Amino acid sequence: MATIDLITYEGSQKLDQKEFDAIYPDLKLRVGELQRAVRDSGVPVIVLFEGWYGSGISLVMNELNRVLDPRGFSYFATTAPEQDEKEYPFLTRFWVRTPSAGRIALFDRGWYGRTMIERTDFSGKVVLQDFAVDEINSFERTLFENGTFILKIFLHISSKEQKKRFKKHQDDPFTLGYIPEEDWSVFVKYKKYLPVLQDLFTQTDTAEAPWHMVDASDQTYAIAEVFRLLISGLENALTMPGKKTQKPGYTHPGYQMPVRGRLPDTADLSLSLEKSDYERQMSEYGKRLRQCQYDLFRKKIPTIILFEGWDAAGKGGAIIRMAGHLNPRGYSVEPVGPPNDIEKFHHHLWRFQKKIPRDGYVRIFDRSWYGRVLVERVEGLAAPPEWERAYREINEMEEALVRHGALLIKFWLHIDRDEQLARFRAREEDPSKKWKITREDWRNREKWDEYEEALRDMFEYTSTASAPWIVVESNNKYFSRVKVLKTVVQAMDAGLAR
Amino acid sequence: MATIDLITYEGSQKLDQKEFDAIYPDLKLRVGELQRAVRDSGVPVIVLFEGWYGSGISLVMNELNRVLDPRGFSYFATTAPEQDEKEYPFLTRFWVRTPSAGRIALFDRGWYGRTMIERTDFSGKVVLQDFAVDEINSFERTLFENGTFILKIFLHISSKEQKKRFKKHQDDPFTLGYIPEEDWSVFVKYKKYLPVLQDLFTQTDTAEAPWHMVDASDQTYAIAEVFRLLISGLENALTMPGKKTQKPGYTHPGYQMPVRGRLPDTADLSLSLEKSDYERQMSEYGKRLRQCQYDLFRKKIPTIILFEGWDAAGKGGAIIRMAGHLNPRGYSVEPVGPPNDIEKFHHHLWRFQKKIPRDGYVRIFDRSWYGRVLVERVEGLAAPPEWERAYREINEMEEALVRHGALLIKFWLHIDRDEQLARFRAREEDPSKKWKITREDWRNREKWDEYEEALRDMFEYTSTASAPWIVVESNNKYFSRVKVLKTVVQAMDAGLAR
Repeated sequence: MATIDLITYEGSQKLDQKEFDAIYPDLKLRVGELQRAVRDSGVPVIVLFEGWYGSGISLVMNELNRVLDPRGFSYFATTAPEQDEKEYPFLTRFWVRTPSAGRIALFDRGWYGRTMIERTDFSGKVVLQDFAVDEINSFERTLFENGTFILKIFLHISSKEQKKRFKKHQDDPFTLGYIPEEDWSVFVKYKKYLPVLQDLFTQTDTAEAPWHMVDASDQTYAIAEVFRLLISGLENALTMPGKKTQKPGYTHPGYQMPVRGRLPDTADLSLSLEKSDYERQMSEYGKRLRQCQYDLFRKKIPTIILFEGWDAAGKGGAIIRMAGHLNPRGYSVEPVGPPNDIEKFHHHLWRFQKKIPRDGYVRIFDRSWYGRVLVERVEGLAAPPEWERAYREINEMEEALVRHGALLIKFWLHIDRDEQLARFRAREEDPSKKWKITREDWRNREKWDEYEEALRDMFEYTSTASAPWIVVESNNKYFSRVKVLKTVVQAMDAGLAR
Repeated sequence: MATIDLITYEGSQKLDQKEFDAIYPDLKLRVGELQRAVRDSGVPVIVLFEGWYGSGISLVMNELNRVLDPRGFSYFATTAPEQDEKEYPFLTRFWVRTPSAGRIALFDRGWYGRTMIERTDFSGKVVLQDFAVDEINSFERTLFENGTFILKIFLHISSKEQKKRFKKHQDDPFTLGYIPEEDWSVFVKYKKYLPVLQDLFTQTDTAEAPWHMVDASDQTYAIAEVFRLLISGLENALTMPGKKTQKPGYTHPGYQMPVRGRLPDTADLSLSLEKSDYERQMSEYGKRLRQCQYDLFRKKIPTIILFEGWDAAGKGGAIIRMAGHLNPRGYSVEPVGPPNDIEKFHHHLWRFQKKIPRDGYVRIFDRSWYGRVLVERVEGLAAPPEWERAYREINEMEEALVRHGALLIKFWLHIDRDEQLARFRAREEDPSKKWKITREDWRNREKWDEYEEALRDMFEYTSTASAPWIVVESNNKYFSRVKVLKTVVQAMDAGLAR
């Protein structure tokens, strides 16, 4: 990668129309071939364009939109977020638009331009919010490591050239019409933002997703150059493992797993509650939960409550008992099973990014993204490098959620082997519950030791300071349900008091 | 169906808690059984609740949310539309939420409440917009005819009871917290809206989707009654054909197909243009297109341009030549192939409802919803009653789009058999175009006569006054592309002048 240098670079490259006409047919043909090859290889590709206002991104987009086969790409023009998009973590609206296997996602501006506008403190000195770079790098790294090729192109013009173009095109709807006026003020203050942009690019010019600068002072040259970058980019993309070959990708070498957390061995499974005590506490905390839900809604704080646990540990019961106190208009339960045929061809976190609750809402996950390091690991559905990477990927996603202001409560419902056996048998004997128990449950049970090993790693690597695991002793259902409800209420109270 | 009578009905039904506790466990068990049976049968089910504010819908929802298995249902609380939702036809946000095969969609208020709020003229006399009932009936009928079971429940209380409850619950976040205040004024004016509501319900109490009124003066009784209705509803749903049995459903007997349109036989395929004339006109109309796109964006008029045509008739080329003049930020091309694994389990129009352009944007469909009456008919992918019904379904969808204010331009690119053969052979001989021609194209060609028959019906039944077909004589590509571009510009000019 060549580090991008915005400050000292002065554009001077030119290409005359004749030369362009001579090379363009071949460039187009080659892009077409490569697009089909990428589709066949199953590598997802992101092509992101950023650039100064006036640098001619829309002209480049216009060319690409005509040349690429519409069956294989999606085009997103990033503008100011809608009101509802604002009520999610910053990167969510880009996450949900990441391409599936073999598709190209073309971003007409994206998380960099929006970082400049939304995550920069413009009071006095212009500075980036300090976590902005980390979140972007983590986003791009995890996409790359899971097989997505990322091409980032910056169209550069000088301040003088920008002024000249603004004068000329001020009223041209073609180049300016779709940019909301409130965004204008930021990007036209060229000199003020130049060092901040330079800083942002230097820090995000990574091995996984390097920057490419295109001198855009001459538009003909810029278009040809973008095609050349696209061609070499797609050629590189074809060297990625892709979905068809099922290679596990690559893990960033510098990463150290965090070591924290409590192992469930220490859980005291003899803990229990009397029925009367259970009913009293459920009713008491239930009332408080109802008030908390409403207060969180008014304060626009989103809540994520996630349940993992042994089969038959009582996840469903705990959720139903808690949900009975919630207003259905403000929460939903997301049952998580194997990924469907669409989800399979995306990054493993994509389907969860689509289910992040909006600010003020409660979302309850019945099983979760931890499937990657539990069932997918144990059943061999993810290769070792894939689930090993996932601890960090999950930690970073959760950190971004918490930083956005979400309450994140993670429960592990713990029972022992004997209790599970007793519950399985009871289910089989009860005609109204028999459907709940399947051959798969028995098969999972046989792999108890392997699950225990996976569990130990999960606690060790993902019980972080911002999102610790809470082990719920669940041999006794009354105790388990009260602990869940009480913990949620206390976490909500604490969140409201912040 | 028993016609719903809001006006003379005075609630008096009661159920005491003891009786309720005695029957409730059985009701819950039965709902669980039926939900699993519905999942296995593949019938999609809509359960829609409407009711006066204060009638206790949220309490009922709370029960249902706890009793239904979250893996098999979705819950939608309908409130005021988001800004972006407002920029689509009225029913779009409900269309995109219709359930797939075997799933239950629970609507906590829906298109009726919103019709009262959004499609009623409150100045002086309170009246419904006159097409509102037609659009709702058409929506429900087509869902039903394509296999969706619809249960509509209205929770009724008297004006006196409503006043009493408002006094009691005014500050209760649980029942009122999530309702936006601007909606309040409409529904609390009980007596003013009672006759309008009665009128709306009488007109929408159809064989396909009858209304059920629940006396909600006593909340315990109401919950039990809703469970009973749900049970008999799901039992009825199980008698529907469902996805697994692949039965074609039912066609409303009273429907007469419209007879209009021009057959493509009359197309003069000798029409052609010289290159110089072609280039001059493309450039002239291209410039006008660019200005039109911008003006439509400012006026928030959405545009749908739909291309159908024989294989190799030049759809792709016509689209690319037109799109070159459009700003990519304001248009997109939607290539239409066979439905994917998710889309297959929905109503055949669902995937297109998800692609309706937002107000001010242009969407170009490369093939379209007409696949139902062309390829799906000819290849036997849809049974005769299914594609026969589709003419009306398509006409009604298009009528709603046009009524919403959309420009809808439908092109049939027409070539003759010899021209197609020449183009197929040319593609096979050109290494850069060889990928464009597949065995399937040759197979389709063999079915030319069957396609011609399907085509004749399509023109006859779907070339309506609000959305006529435009046949583009396409043996000569120059003529074809100019006619497409010119027609679009003229339609846009006319739309802007309205």
